[in-house]
Formats: sequence, structure tokens, C-alpha cells
Amino acid sequence: MKKNYLLTPGPTPLPTCVTEALARPIIHHRTPQFRAILQQAEDGLKYVFNTKNDIFIFSSSGTGAMEAAVANLLSPGEVVLTIEGGKFGQRWTEICQAYNVRCDVIEVEWGRAVDPKEIERRIRTNPEIKAIFTTLCETSTGVVNDIEAIGRIVKDSQAILVVDAISSLCSLPLLTDTWSCDMVVAGSQKGLMLPPGLGFISVSPKAWNLINKSKNPRYYFDLGVAKKALDKTDTPFTPAISLIIALNEALNMIRQEGLENIFLRCKKMAEATRQAARALGLELLASSSDASDAVTAIRLPEGIDGQALVKTMRDIYGVAIAGGQGVLKGRIIRIAHMGYIGEFDIIIAITCLEKVLCQLGYKFQLGAGVKAAQKILQ
Amino acid sequence: MKKNYLLTPGPTPLPTCVTEALARPIIHHRTPQFRAILQQAEDGLKYVFNTKNDIFIFSSSGTGAMEAAVANLLSPGEVVLTIEGGKFGQRWTEICQAYNVRCDVIEVEWGRAVDPKEIERRIRTNPEIKAIFTTLCETSTGVVNDIEAIGRIVKDSQAILVVDAISSLCSLPLLTDTWSCDMVVAGSQKGLMLPPGLGFISVSPKAWNLINKSKNPRYYFDLGVAKKALDKTDTPFTPAISLIIALNEALNMIRQEGLENIFLRCKKMAEATRQAARALGLELLASSSDASDAVTAIRLPEGIDGQALVKTMRDIYGVAIAGGQGVLKGRIIRIAHMGYIGEFDIIIAITCLEKVLCQLGYKFQLGAGVKAAQKILQ
Repeated sequence: MKKNYLLTPGPTPLPTCVTEALARPIIHHRTPQFRAILQQAEDGLKYVFNTKNDIFIFSSSGTGAMEAAVANLLSPGEVVLTIEGGKFGQRWTEICQAYNVRCDVIEVEWGRAVDPKEIERRIRTNPEIKAIFTTLCETSTGVVNDIEAIGRIVKDSQAILVVDAISSLCSLPLLTDTWSCDMVVAGSQKGLMLPPGLGFISVSPKAWNLINKSKNPRYYFDLGVAKKALDKTDTPFTPAISLIIALNEALNMIRQEGLENIFLRCKKMAEATRQAARALGLELLASSSDASDAVTAIRLPEGIDGQALVKTMRDIYGVAIAGGQGVLKGRIIRIAHMGYIGEFDIIIAITCLEKVLCQLGYKFQLGAGVKAAQKILQ
Repeated sequence: MKKNYLLTPGPTPLPTCVTEALARPIIHHRTPQFRAILQQAEDGLKYVFNTKNDIFIFSSSGTGAMEAAVANLLSPGEVVLTIEGGKFGQRWTEICQAYNVRCDVIEVEWGRAVDPKEIERRIRTNPEIKAIFTTLCETSTGVVNDIEAIGRIVKDSQAILVVDAISSLCSLPLLTDTWSCDMVVAGSQKGLMLPPGLGFISVSPKAWNLINKSKNPRYYFDLGVAKKALDKTDTPFTPAISLIIALNEALNMIRQEGLENIFLRCKKMAEATRQAARALGLELLASSSDASDAVTAIRLPEGIDGQALVKTMRDIYGVAIAGGQGVLKGRIIRIAHMGYIGEFDIIIAITCLEKVLCQLGYKFQLGAGVKAAQKILQ
């Protein structure tokens, strides 16, 4: 017998109401029945995004919605600001470059948040900058950026603020309108507790001004066409019907728990994980002030192979956590606190981590991690 | 009590093995477990495409895979040939124009197939043509084009042949390699019996030559990046995990029935529908030689409102068929014969059609349609 537990920062476990919805007979999308479902999804998304702006649903991964931002906002040769403090910050640069958009890049040490003052300097010295591409939670490092402070800076500038909230939506506070986020991108397989396959993007009036001038080619991700459809509670192309039906189930669960309670739960699980790591003598990748409550990245001691650790936990004991990406491959592990993950899942992850660290020859006091976590979760 | 029946040309009904697979707990995609699933899907897709070429799976609708063809093959200012005999032929033109690709358009009467000789004339007189964008089954009209003949013409030309097989894969014969189809595009929610959310594209060596020269911007749909991932049995971005797991269930069903048997079943259901329509005194949109066995489009008599007919069948009696699109809105109905639709579903559709036609005041002999269908299905 092997029971499986999923604590990766996407996909996250599916609640029963979601799997049950996915298993329902399918219905056609050009019907009043589906339009009512789409309207309900739109309302629920506005609640979790904290916005009055339109939110568009694409049948794509979160990356597709990121591309939608670049393809709709800009024209070849224009200048933007990107922030590279991890793999997903780099992705913004890559997408912009694919569209021949010029990137002014702020390099940030992986594991640190960007300094909002640096963003202020760049957009003051370079009035050509049309957009700032940021990441609320950088999934690859477990770092949270101060989007509220960045929003205050960008708000009164010529530029618009684009936020990748893929791994943070429904896990970390996100006040789209209050923080002046012009575009917020999200995906289905993280805090929204769904399988991957839906990408989301919210669009502010300031962003629409730029969209109307953009010359980048686009069709599938064209927001102008999507807006015409949305105004009739419709989609331009066949939507991922089952996932949208399941989305409403997840959104209902989220409304019932309440976003504030969810954020507190994630914070508690993150703090428990951080304290457990420290009690095991492990270092955290992110400094205390920069640590995200959606996912915790833990440095591994010299001599412990991160890939072997992750593989053993998953394939022998059924506990799936994530390893490092890019330059951090094999050097860190990442434990998620988002979506349908609860406090006992965290205890399981730490128990299994202790078990395998012990097998790999790492010296520590067995139970110290779990006990430290228990104290926080008490 | 209302039982629901789905006979639309996408989405099509989901078999139990598919809904059951969708309801399973999710697994992570960067694992040996998922790589085995992806390999199995790739093998099954090669069987249904009849190809040795690589097939790429996108988390998108079929339109996303259509855009992938245009974005990867061409550069701004280049010339292609498109064929507009329905809404989906027009879509090729629209996507090309979005990418500033110049379209030589063959206009075809809606309800007729394109004459392959006209394609031959165009590519002979215009050696600039880089690609021919075609549709195997034009879903909006129920017309099948002679891709085999078109393939013979394009094969020895400078141009490559792109085929939209979205509504025909697994319903109509499609010999990707034998017919020299350089790119074939498909979607999940038709003959593959899945919810919408997956797009597929096969790529021939001749197509790769063009891809390597293309300057169109792309990221999410970049086939070069997808090829590097596929060579490691991976995907560049988070795939729609649940749908790919369910795809394998559907592909197993298809292998068990056998493609040839499925084509015969579709042909029989299509012929039954056509004979039923004639017996009711209704005209078919497509001429006999051009009629697709994947979906049948039936003209409505003067005075019968197609939108009211479709709405009554669906909302009062639970039988969902499709109406007309574009210029055919309100003037035709379309009954699908693809995917998980069987002969008794066709009897239900015709019974319900007779019921509602009668209510709308159309004069005919009750039962004539069903009887004509029964004769074919006997």
C-alpha cells in the first residue's frame, strides 16, 4: 500500500467537489446553461482577484496568460522593465524577447525580493518604459515581492504594472485595484485547486489604453476579441468547459472559507515549515522578510542530493514535494502551502523529510522538525 | 425528469472511462509516472493521425493549435493560400492576417468542397505561396474536402500542406503521411471524446524546414521549444495533466474498436441522418459527393426558425444539436456523428427533430425520418 500526498507548488491536490464536477457529463458552451456558469465564474474570480476589472479566462496554462499580456500590450522595439529573481521572472524577459520587445532587466539574487526603489530609479531614468513585469510569489525561490509598494510607484508613472500571481492567487493577499495592478495573471492549478488548463488575466482601463495601441500579432490570446465575447458572457473559442464548471465549485469553497482565513492558514503552514527546517538545522533560501507563505524553499546541506531526496520521498513514500529549478537544481527543496493543502499535510511532509534525510546520512535529532511545526500549528 | 443527449459537433459526449479518469487524484507532471503517460499518449496519437511525425500537445483549444501552425511556419509579408468554404476555413485567413501573412483566398460556396484543381492552378501561377491551409471536415457546413487529392498536388510543390482535422480526427479517414499532410491540427472535444482543452499538431520534416526560417513571434506555441521538451518526453509548460490522462483512456477505446470500424460507424450514422432528412422532405446543405460523415448539415424549410428549433429540442426535450454559424445562422441544423455518439443517439435526434418540426407547423408524415434511418442502421 502506498498513499500519495501532493505538496508541490502546482499542481496542488484536488478537493472532492472539484473531481466530482470534472466527472459530470459535459454540456455545450453556446447555451444559456453555460453562460450562467461563465457569469458565476467571472463573479467569483473578481472576488479572489479583488478587482472590478474584467477577467479573461483562457484555455491554456498560466504561461499562455503571461504571453497574452505581452502580445496585447506592446509593439516590437518598445521597452519594458523585467525583474529576474527566479525562473518565472526570467520567463517575462523570454516572452518579451520572443516579441522583439526590449527588456531593461533588474537582476535580483535568487532568494531575495526586488527593491521597489530600484524600480522607481529605472522608470524615472527611462521614460520609454511602457510596462513593468513583476512576480507576486516567485515560485522557484519562495520569495514574495512587495507589489503594494511597487504599485504605489508605478501608479503615477507612464508605465503599467503587470503581476504574475500564478502561484499566489488565493494564497497571499492580492489587492488588484487598491495596489494599482493593471494586469494580473493567474493559473488554475495552484490556489484555485483545479487541474492545470486555465489561465486568467485581469485588465485595467490603463492597460486597455496600451492594448489599443499595440501592434504585436495575436489571435488566440487577443484580448480585444475576448472582450467582445465577454460582453456577451461568451468566449471567442471553445472554452475548457469541464474546468470552468469545476472552477465554480472551487470558488464556492474559497468563498465559504473566506480569503482572509485562507491567507491565515497558508501563513501558519508556511511558518510551521520554516520553523521545522530551522529545528532540523536547515537554512531557508529566502530571508525572513522576503519569504512567501505560498511555498517554502529550503537549502539542503552539502552532501545531500536534492534530486535523490525528492525522488525517494515521492517514489518510495508517496510524498511529492518539489526540487530546485535552474541554478537551484538539486540544491533546494520546495514545500507548497497553497490550495487544498492542510496542516496535517505539512506534518506528513516534514515527517517524510526527516525520514529520508536520516536515510541519506544527515545528522539531526529525529522529531525536532515535526515538533517545531506542531508548536506553530497548535 | 429530463435526460440530456449531446449530438453537437463538439463538445461530444464523454464515455465513462474518460469521466472516471478526470475524477482521479492529480499527479505532478515532472515525474517518471507522468512521462510514461505522455509517451503512451504520443504513441496513441500517432496511431490515430496515421503518422510517424512528432505530434505536439498544447493546453489550448483547437484554434490554439491552428495559431501554432501559422506562428511557427511563416514570416510577416509571406504569401499563403487559404480556402474559405465555411467558418473554419475563414479562421485560417483570420489567423494569417493577424500575423501579417498575405492570403490568396479561394472562395468556395458554403456547402461545397474545394476543387483540388483550383489549388493546383493557384500554386502553379504563384510560386510565392509557402503553405496551403485546408480543412478536412468543415464543421460549419458538414462538407469534407478531398485532402488526398490536394496532398498529391502539394507534395511536389514548394509549398507545405496544413490540414485542420479538428472535427474529423477519428471520424473520417486521415492518412497524414500517405497523403503528404505536413501539419495536421486537431482538438480533444470531437472524435477523441474528451472535454475541450487540448490542441494537437503533427509536424513533417518538410514543415520543419519552413519552421526553421520563420520569423513570426511565438512563445507558448513555439514548436522548437516543444520539440526539445518532447525529445525528453516532457512539455515546455505545465500540461493539462487530467486531460492527457483521460486522453489515454479514450485512445484505448479507439484502439479497441479500431479506426476502420469507427469510420464505418460514423458513415452509417451519417447516411441514416441524410436519409431521414430526405424522408422528411428536408434538403441537405452538402451535395452527396461532398457530405462529411462526421456531421450532417440540414437546410430548414422557409418559415421554420432554426434557432427556435435548436432551443426547443435542447431546453424542452434535452436533445442538443447545433444550429448554423455565420451566414447560415438560423437556416440550418447540424447533427454530429463523431466521438461517443451511437446509432440510437441518432434515432433520438431524429425522433426529437420530428417532434419539434411538427410543433412548429411543418407538414410531413410522422415517423418517416426515423423509419428511413432505421433502414440504414438495420
